[in-house]
Amino acid sequence: MLLSLRKTQSKADVEPLLTLARELGYRTRFLDAGRHVLELVREDGSVGAPSDRSRIEELAVVKQVLDASDAPELTEARGATQPTVVRVGWAVFGGGQVSLIAGPCAVEELEDLVLVAHAVKRAGATLLRGGAFKPRTSPHSFQGLGREGLARLVAAREEVGLEFVTEVLDPRDVPLVADAADMLQVGSRSMSNAPLLREVGESGRPVLLKRGLAATVRELLLAAEYVLATGNPNVVLCERGVRGFDGVTRNLLDVGAVAHLATATHLPVVVDPSHAAGRSELVAPLALAGLAAGADGLIVEVHPSPGRVHSDGAQALSPSAFEELARDVRALARLRGKTLAVPRPEVPPVYEVEETAP
Amino acid sequence: MLLSLRKTQSKADVEPLLTLARELGYRTRFLDAGRHVLELVREDGSVGAPSDRSRIEELAVVKQVLDASDAPELTEARGATQPTVVRVGWAVFGGGQVSLIAGPCAVEELEDLVLVAHAVKRAGATLLRGGAFKPRTSPHSFQGLGREGLARLVAAREEVGLEFVTEVLDPRDVPLVADAADMLQVGSRSMSNAPLLREVGESGRPVLLKRGLAATVRELLLAAEYVLATGNPNVVLCERGVRGFDGVTRNLLDVGAVAHLATATHLPVVVDPSHAAGRSELVAPLALAGLAAGADGLIVEVHPSPGRVHSDGAQALSPSAFEELARDVRALARLRGKTLAVPRPEVPPVYEVEETAP
Amino acid sequence: MLLSLRKTQSKADVEPLLTLARELGYRTRFLDAGRHVLELVREDGSVGAPSDRSRIEELAVVKQVLDASDAPELTEARGATQPTVVRVGWAVFGGGQVSLIAGPCAVEELEDLVLVAHAVKRAGATLLRGGAFKPRTSPHSFQGLGREGLARLVAAREEVGLEFVTEVLDPRDVPLVADAADMLQVGSRSMSNAPLLREVGESGRPVLLKRGLAATVRELLLAAEYVLATGNPNVVLCERGVRGFDGVTRNLLDVGAVAHLATATHLPVVVDPSHAAGRSELVAPLALAGLAAGADGLIVEVHPSPGRVHSDGAQALSPSAFEELARDVRALARLRGKTLAVPRPEVPPVYEVEETAP
Amino acid sequence: MLLSLRKTQSKADVEPLLTLARELGYRTRFLDAGRHVLELVREDGSVGAPSDRSRIEELAVVKQVLDASDAPELTEARGATQPTVVRVGWAVFGGGQVSLIAGPCAVEELEDLVLVAHAVKRAGATLLRGGAFKPRTSPHSFQGLGREGLARLVAAREEVGLEFVTEVLDPRDVPLVADAADMLQVGSRSMSNAPLLREVGESGRPVLLKRGLAATVRELLLAAEYVLATGNPNVVLCERGVRGFDGVTRNLLDVGAVAHLATATHLPVVVDPSHAAGRSELVAPLALAGLAAGADGLIVEVHPSPGRVHSDGAQALSPSAFEELARDVRALARLRGKTLAVPRPEVPPVYEVEETAP
Repeated sequence: MLLSLRKTQSKADVEPLLTLARELGYRTRFLDAGRHVLELVREDGSVGAPSDRSRIEELAVVKQVLDASDAPELTEARGATQPTVVRVGWAVFGGGQVSLIAGPCAVEELEDLVLVAHAVKRAGATLLRGGAFKPRTSPHSFQGLGREGLARLVAAREEVGLEFVTEVLDPRDVPLVADAADMLQVGSRSMSNAPLLREVGESGRPVLLKRGLAATVRELLLAAEYVLATGNPNVVLCERGVRGFDGVTRNLLDVGAVAHLATATHLPVVVDPSHAAGRSELVAPLALAGLAAGADGLIVEVHPSPGRVHSDGAQALSPSAFEELARDVRALARLRGKTLAVPRPEVPPVYEVEETAP
Repeated sequence: MLLSLRKTQSKADVEPLLTLARELGYRTRFLDAGRHVLELVREDGSVGAPSDRSRIEELAVVKQVLDASDAPELTEARGATQPTVVRVGWAVFGGGQVSLIAGPCAVEELEDLVLVAHAVKRAGATLLRGGAFKPRTSPHSFQGLGREGLARLVAAREEVGLEFVTEVLDPRDVPLVADAADMLQVGSRSMSNAPLLREVGESGRPVLLKRGLAATVRELLLAAEYVLATGNPNVVLCERGVRGFDGVTRNLLDVGAVAHLATATHLPVVVDPSHAAGRSELVAPLALAGLAAGADGLIVEVHPSPGRVHSDGAQALSPSAFEELARDVRALARLRGKTLAVPRPEVPPVYEVEETAP
Repeated sequence: MLLSLRKTQSKADVEPLLTLARELGYRTRFLDAGRHVLELVREDGSVGAPSDRSRIEELAVVKQVLDASDAPELTEARGATQPTVVRVGWAVFGGGQVSLIAGPCAVEELEDLVLVAHAVKRAGATLLRGGAFKPRTSPHSFQGLGREGLARLVAAREEVGLEFVTEVLDPRDVPLVADAADMLQVGSRSMSNAPLLREVGESGRPVLLKRGLAATVRELLLAAEYVLATGNPNVVLCERGVRGFDGVTRNLLDVGAVAHLATATHLPVVVDPSHAAGRSELVAPLALAGLAAGADGLIVEVHPSPGRVHSDGAQALSPSAFEELARDVRALARLRGKTLAVPRPEVPPVYEVEETAP
Repeated sequence: MLLSLRKTQSKADVEPLLTLARELGYRTRFLDAGRHVLELVREDGSVGAPSDRSRIEELAVVKQVLDASDAPELTEARGATQPTVVRVGWAVFGGGQVSLIAGPCAVEELEDLVLVAHAVKRAGATLLRGGAFKPRTSPHSFQGLGREGLARLVAAREEVGLEFVTEVLDPRDVPLVADAADMLQVGSRSMSNAPLLREVGESGRPVLLKRGLAATVRELLLAAEYVLATGNPNVVLCERGVRGFDGVTRNLLDVGAVAHLATATHLPVVVDPSHAAGRSELVAPLALAGLAAGADGLIVEVHPSPGRVHSDGAQALSPSAFEELARDVRALARLRGKTLAVPRPEVPPVYEVEETAP
């Protein structure tokens, strides 16, 4: 590890760093006369534990790790790393496979939910989304149907044959939600919620981790690291737009982060064009931009009557608009050398099979 | 309430809004031919419930509430509202009183903690700060001493006679922390953590609520609203810098938000110059800037040997630098027509009193 | 026009607005009892001059124009507007045609310039880019070759048969640059430079207008309005990334703005992935993302030996990487229903024609 | 100089850097085995020319200058540097002196201008501000009175005895404006306008240089460097708020930058609370916050009837509000160990003196 140090008042200020480095098994050497640059080399030639960089970085005298990619953190793509492929039902994220997640923002009527689930599956979605526990800015806003919402998602899965991802907000709800859902979503507001990240990690379920509103890419990867550190390797990152200064879109979709993540981490990345756009007519262009930048999938809000819904209706696509988007996604994925995962085939009911057997 | 509406495809899209408004007891009237502006008036002339605005705003057709200050939310300052005064031990925030909170970033050695507590009390601080549960970006970083850290804070309070505020990260830890601490801190990363906000609200303890890294002022007030909605009125807001684009300071201290909050809410506001500055030499000027903008207090990191600490050492003041700052704060508070609250006086030990009694 | 007004101290504060509105030929009417919303209707039923909105908006009492799209500004797309198609040599921007602009950041050796020009033309570029006058943050940096740089661009055009666009920084240089160049670039740092915008407008040359580092979409359109107001309709807008908070890319490419502009203005929009990426390996994914979002072209830095150049070398593509990108662009344009304009065909020299004539 | 380098494909990529360094008279040495860190030392032990850092930094392989403060640029404060004190008439900026600049946003009626000038001088302002050439976002907005505006400022100076600063937008107008004005303002939109910076530098007039809307502190200092490089040492920097994401203030006043500049440069810094606030009631708190952070002066908009003006009226103070602010400024300056410069005393007219002589 190569460290750039702050100017210090006295030599003693560097002592804690030298001591820690030695305890962790590194030999230390200042490279320049001004003692600005310190080199740490493992005595045994090994790369050191994932935690070394984080422990060293947090000392006051350390300004920067200069050769950051040498830090062996769990999320980073290095030479021999295979891309992580995350499978949820018939959805596959990563390793050249692209999947579509779609559904309403919040779960409301079961009838509507089943209708949307059928429609998005028909169009090519392999995972249903829908909020039972909703993170809301105001305590006076609709907070989701909770347990009842989960039950409706389970019913829709039964009926339609489409696995689902849903958000969990409270570490105490993780067992409940993990019991019902096929994939757990950690929302943008919860990205830095360490107790929640640990719980979802330990649930063993695949995790969809959304980037915080003003989180750096490194902060997003370190949030993923909380999950990986529990031994759960199935994390899908999600770029959903960062806070910008212009109101033409709700958030600023950071396609540069998507392109960068494709080279920096072995984890798959999906894009949420709905929350970035905030207006339905911009959802399709942003979805395609995300894919073109290298995303391994999309998560899109679809609602049969967008004007009527409680939250985020302005950005939901109608089922037919989603169908059109899915067609373009298939073509674009092919262009970029990837394949769109296909939904579970409709199986004829068993009794029909028996009837046709002579 | 006066609403600006989005352009809609058909008249039917506005129906859910009209229905909801009527259910909430409002009469509705479009003011312009183009049906862009809708006026809602309570049938009975009253102002309506705090929740009305939030429920109406979340409908897809509503672009903006034009006369927003009419919205009767719990945090907003209106005509007759008295400023909320929050008292914690000898600290007083609001109503013309300013208080200093000071202490180490994380609780480490008890000896150091007591030393700092004595020093900051002597200088004029009325509340000790110190992290037992630390929110960390990386799972590999030091996460605080937890229960043991709480025990040391309690011991220091005993020894020095200085109440303390400490952060709680996990809703499941609230009973434990509320049992020990005099005030609960909700950190920047947790500002939008609704389950946590509800728990700290229900603990009945005063709450120090830090603004999220990219939270708008309205989002901060709505987070406070989660606490107030539990019936707990004792919330102190904290501005600690928002994410900026320039590295000269760690965060961008938003003194405009401080000045605005002083007129927009009845809740007191303190400023955290340490996390905004990120470098000890900028802490004092930022502290004074915050006060000049109208803050009701400061929360400052102080450490006996800043170079040595695990986290955030670069921004901690030495006890003597804090003493100098406290002197300037006292003078500036006076200039702005406010008073700096004074710490609990040192009481001579009881046996001495007995001995001198003839 | 429908205006939302600020709260005012007295009725007199609104007088200047009412007077101005009447002078401009509008009838005024307050729509609500609180006098927050004012409607302006032209006496003669017409839409009013492009300047009315700007003049009215700048009055202190006007908070917002609620029905902004009614404002008849020159850049806005309205019902019957045909998209503006800008042609420069064989390049065509808009109306379903996409064009590639490519070349070195700064013009240096003529030999290199000709080499790059040949390479990018062969790959499918229809316009050469190259800086003769360079905008530099530091006065000590290389400021470009100036007149000599222009001469080399002219020589390369002669030699290769590829028109060129180059930046002009100083209004006093516009005649000189317009005399040589086929299209004038107004750089990001100059977007708000009104004297320069007026001069380039009056030169009659097509203008490539880059968005400022933190300019809103409306500010970009109003900069274009300065050019259109001179009677010059040939403006191509350019999104090149806004200032973000994360260092993984040099700037944050705002594909949402690209998607929005495609619906909001009749002017064509191109994307500059090189300045957004700041690193060559991210240029292609950002270029494709921009196109997928709806751009009408790209402007890309290409250099035969990227490591060697004076400025911005880290983000330049090699000629072969550009060739690969151009292939993907052609396929993606087709997918999005657009056509990539083709370069001027190589014409066999005249004497050969004569020789083959019997 | 200590450089951190990018990872390169081949050793040849570093050659241009090594060659340039040698040409500039530096000896080069790689400090680590991985060739990430390069040390440059002057053969003759000198610090090198101001331009060296800029020339070296712009090479593609250079990631960062690690010991940046060693770079001997003209604006940087180093060991022995005396603070630059800029004097304009009776105004003094820097070296412990604080001055107030005040006046209308745009020059309109002469009568109003004289009235405001009298009022602000009486309150303690030592410099009048007023725009003759206005930078406007829209070409349809009022662009200022131009020459006629200058004439009125000159007439007001004559009448009231108060020097003035006014903005210049176009390098071609510099001689005209410099002939009339006592100090030239380079506005926020023009901070990166190199031709303009060179012209105002060469005019020899003191320059008030406003920070760009999203400019880093280093970019601001490099803009000042353009002026200093012409041999003109009289630059006053101005922090006026950067672009933020929240609408509660017009811009986000960066008091951290003010505090940092006080240590990083020898140039004086003033704060513009009016453009940061955007609302008159927030101007005084922001003004005091700026001073508390270390500013050497303020520039404040004052107008006799704020509601009536063409531009930026919502943020102008009335003369009496300014008087109150000036009182607070005087007290706060004293607290921070500084002195508020006093305006030119009123001299009794000469003929009266003669008349009273017996």
